[in-house]
Amino acid sequence: MKNIKIAIAQKNFTVGDLKSNFEIIIDSIKKAKQNSVKIVAFPELALTGYFPKDLLLNRQFIDENEKYLNMIVNNCDSITALVGFVHKDKNNIYNSIAVIQDKKIVKIIKKPNINTFEKRYFTQHNNIEIVELKIGKNNVKIGIMISDEFENSENNVDVTKILMEKGAEAIFCCSASPYFINKLDNKRNIIINISKKYNVPIIYTNLIGGQDDLIYDGNSFAIDENGEIVTICKANKEDMKYFELDKKQSNQTFPKINKMEELFNSLVLGISDYFRKTGFKEAIIGLSGGIDSALVAVLASEAIGAKNVYCYAMPSEFSTNHSITDAEKLAKNLDINYSEIPIKNDYNNLMNTLANEFKGTEFGLAEENLQARIRGIILMSIANKYNRLVLATGNKTEVFLGYFTLYGDSNGALAPISDLNKVEVYALSNYINKRLGKEVIPQNIIDKKPSAELKDEQYDPFDYEIVAPLVDEIVNNNPTKDELLKMNYESNLIDKIFKLIRYSEYKRSQLVTGLKVSKAMVCNNRKMPIVNGYNLE
Amino acid sequence: MKNIKIAIAQKNFTVGDLKSNFEIIIDSIKKAKQNSVKIVAFPELALTGYFPKDLLLNRQFIDENEKYLNMIVNNCDSITALVGFVHKDKNNIYNSIAVIQDKKIVKIIKKPNINTFEKRYFTQHNNIEIVELKIGKNNVKIGIMISDEFENSENNVDVTKILMEKGAEAIFCCSASPYFINKLDNKRNIIINISKKYNVPIIYTNLIGGQDDLIYDGNSFAIDENGEIVTICKANKEDMKYFELDKKQSNQTFPKINKMEELFNSLVLGISDYFRKTGFKEAIIGLSGGIDSALVAVLASEAIGAKNVYCYAMPSEFSTNHSITDAEKLAKNLDINYSEIPIKNDYNNLMNTLANEFKGTEFGLAEENLQARIRGIILMSIANKYNRLVLATGNKTEVFLGYFTLYGDSNGALAPISDLNKVEVYALSNYINKRLGKEVIPQNIIDKKPSAELKDEQYDPFDYEIVAPLVDEIVNNNPTKDELLKMNYESNLIDKIFKLIRYSEYKRSQLVTGLKVSKAMVCNNRKMPIVNGYNLE
Repeated sequence: MKNIKIAIAQKNFTVGDLKSNFEIIIDSIKKAKQNSVKIVAFPELALTGYFPKDLLLNRQFIDENEKYLNMIVNNCDSITALVGFVHKDKNNIYNSIAVIQDKKIVKIIKKPNINTFEKRYFTQHNNIEIVELKIGKNNVKIGIMISDEFENSENNVDVTKILMEKGAEAIFCCSASPYFINKLDNKRNIIINISKKYNVPIIYTNLIGGQDDLIYDGNSFAIDENGEIVTICKANKEDMKYFELDKKQSNQTFPKINKMEELFNSLVLGISDYFRKTGFKEAIIGLSGGIDSALVAVLASEAIGAKNVYCYAMPSEFSTNHSITDAEKLAKNLDINYSEIPIKNDYNNLMNTLANEFKGTEFGLAEENLQARIRGIILMSIANKYNRLVLATGNKTEVFLGYFTLYGDSNGALAPISDLNKVEVYALSNYINKRLGKEVIPQNIIDKKPSAELKDEQYDPFDYEIVAPLVDEIVNNNPTKDELLKMNYESNLIDKIFKLIRYSEYKRSQLVTGLKVSKAMVCNNRKMPIVNGYNLE
Repeated sequence: MKNIKIAIAQKNFTVGDLKSNFEIIIDSIKKAKQNSVKIVAFPELALTGYFPKDLLLNRQFIDENEKYLNMIVNNCDSITALVGFVHKDKNNIYNSIAVIQDKKIVKIIKKPNINTFEKRYFTQHNNIEIVELKIGKNNVKIGIMISDEFENSENNVDVTKILMEKGAEAIFCCSASPYFINKLDNKRNIIINISKKYNVPIIYTNLIGGQDDLIYDGNSFAIDENGEIVTICKANKEDMKYFELDKKQSNQTFPKINKMEELFNSLVLGISDYFRKTGFKEAIIGLSGGIDSALVAVLASEAIGAKNVYCYAMPSEFSTNHSITDAEKLAKNLDINYSEIPIKNDYNNLMNTLANEFKGTEFGLAEENLQARIRGIILMSIANKYNRLVLATGNKTEVFLGYFTLYGDSNGALAPISDLNKVEVYALSNYINKRLGKEVIPQNIIDKKPSAELKDEQYDPFDYEIVAPLVDEIVNNNPTKDELLKMNYESNLIDKIFKLIRYSEYKRSQLVTGLKVSKAMVCNNRKMPIVNGYNLE
């Protein structure tokens, strides 16, 4: 692999948008050629976007994807391109990489180790092949892997081993690997160790961009046969890198990961891509004066621009003065649009409408939820009027405890922080103020006791320092009660949390899409029965 | 298998409720013994209920399931019981049948052909074994299949063939096979054909009862080695049948299936079990005066009793008089609780609250949705106040066209008819009136033009006779546009329907659980990207 210029095309593709993905690929190939590149690598399923889900069940979509691939082929002279697409063979479809050279497809590599969710669509392909390429006067043998097949625990086939046995001189890993907290370091180590084990260079091309709940973080890189860094692509941004494996600056290191910075940038990318790719421009957020909605407002104004963010404080009779002043101050700090819409009249009117039904009953959950639902209606009405999207502000801890109002504060098209626990919400908020060197999120919002303010003197009935990690533990690891007792959680607390989680499954079953930032995502990965007679207590 | 008394225990189990499932099993074994039964067969995963989903990830749940199994073992003398449970072996769990005899587990049969969704939890087991039993003085060889493995299209292993090669004298098929329209006939034929092919008796034990979106319809049966019926269990009801394979009435036939009767009873079972198993007793329904809410009211009053159904007509300024009189008449016919709650004042108040935001705009979607959302709020408030469940009334055609208001008429804990298309809604309504020999659903509700009544002179902009099957075709079969044109659908209509379906994915992603009655269920089976750049037009 000496003297061969290679390019990593870390690009942002959109699921289903074949035309625009095609254009991105053509444009990248053109730029690579201008840079005398001989081999350019794209991410997994670049042409269709990752992951197309049930679009893959539609023959028309598959046919059009192949039509666009042929148009790419016709544009590929004097360069070899590795392009992810869906290959159809008889009645099967394969997650594939087309190896294109001299306006011909010289090889189609099909993914052997398909993921659980890919099995709904793709056929597994077990015949692992090497690709022999003529680059200038030289013949080179490259191995192509689709996705981070190294880290697939269900791995049936050790693809790297077979590729090496077949004489691979370099491994191109074309991937679509989504972000979660603490993933990147581990992934880098795995890839470097594989390189060192087999003395083989690895060119790792990852997708970048948001798609529904997933955020692909880029962070592509190339390493030489000693596992030493040749080039590194940006995190959370498109990037193209041109390099030769045998010409590198020595002693490069990966930039140290700042967990909060990484989290912030990932969430911002997830939000901005959701808006851009669905064609929406403006967001609506209800500001409660609390930390969750404040954080979402910061993320949204970073993602789509402050002038596109419309915030509303909607005080009821139980709202405190500081809620309004804090919300107002936040909006001013961010320079986002801000209005107050008191809901007291609407609440009283609806209580009047319900007077006959509620006769003789006391103020309770129904009245609390009513306030949240009036707010939800107001936000949705404005969103419908001006074609904006409501952002839901719930965090993972409340979402699992069911500590939110269905059809109220959970309303929205996207829930940017529903996979962050309450402790992470505080940590990220503190990071933001520190990062910007000023108080963007008013300190009082960070310092005050969390409250839903749906009745007098109401404070969240949880010590989040204890409860947030407990909820995460339960959700991530499915512990038994005994195991939790051994971790020194109190018996009564464990029972209470088990119960709250169990009784709120039906609420989560209707929850808006959130951005995944943890290994075990709230809604996406969890599949609990709603009708469920089992008590863990 | 001569002179051996067998029992099919077609029982209603609850997911997760190990204690109550245990009691049902013990009670059934006791009854079987009283009837001199030698072998009693239970459905798949009887002990845990089907399907426990992520409860299977919890070690405590698995351990308790095995503890209860041991308690069953201790109760099993002088009878052989085939009991579905989760077997743990090292770090793997298996969908299993315990063969219990003389207070011992004599064999554990593990399911070889596990379904796609079961793969998340269970390990596949490929060693297919026969069970040799001593019944009285005789030795018999029985084959045990878990689930309708015959009809599994992904079938890797032909279990029946192997069991027959190993000398099975009878096949016990312990299953949890959910209902959908037109399934039963086909299933019966498959099983009868297998029996005839191998000249083997088959004892088919199916689960009965509702679980979340699925309705298990029972309809268990036993056939002799000529595929001739020995016994038939009831549809949609618990049943126990005691029989000997060689002693049967001749020329029994399956009762002819009345599709509408079957549909009606299945939906009623799905609703009643949702309430009973979650511990709720009372339902709330918003009556629009239209056909969908009328049908849901009939189903609910049949499922949980008329006195437990609370209905509300909530007229706005756009509601017609006949909407109210029709709703009132329906409520009277059903003898359900009925109130009128006009929403005009609340609507005007909220419009007033929004006046500043809406200044200079015209009446449109926002105002239409606002009415539906006020109704949604009112129903949820009453539900919260009295611990009732709201039933959502949308049908499959509107659900896919996005012709409903999110956080409005889609609010609810269960959507009983969200998997029926609009034509099926009419057919079932007509059947109901015919069945009861009187006008339960006022004829005017059936005859009038469908309307959402959210603005003046608004009628549903669809010819449902054409659009309902078109939507079903798209959703079930993923056709290309060309294929739809060949079916004589108009080009413009196809484009419009494709667009409506695509733009409403995000609404469906938040949709309440509905009862599955079609092969391709609305929410459960469909996995579409929300951010999606692909146009089928």
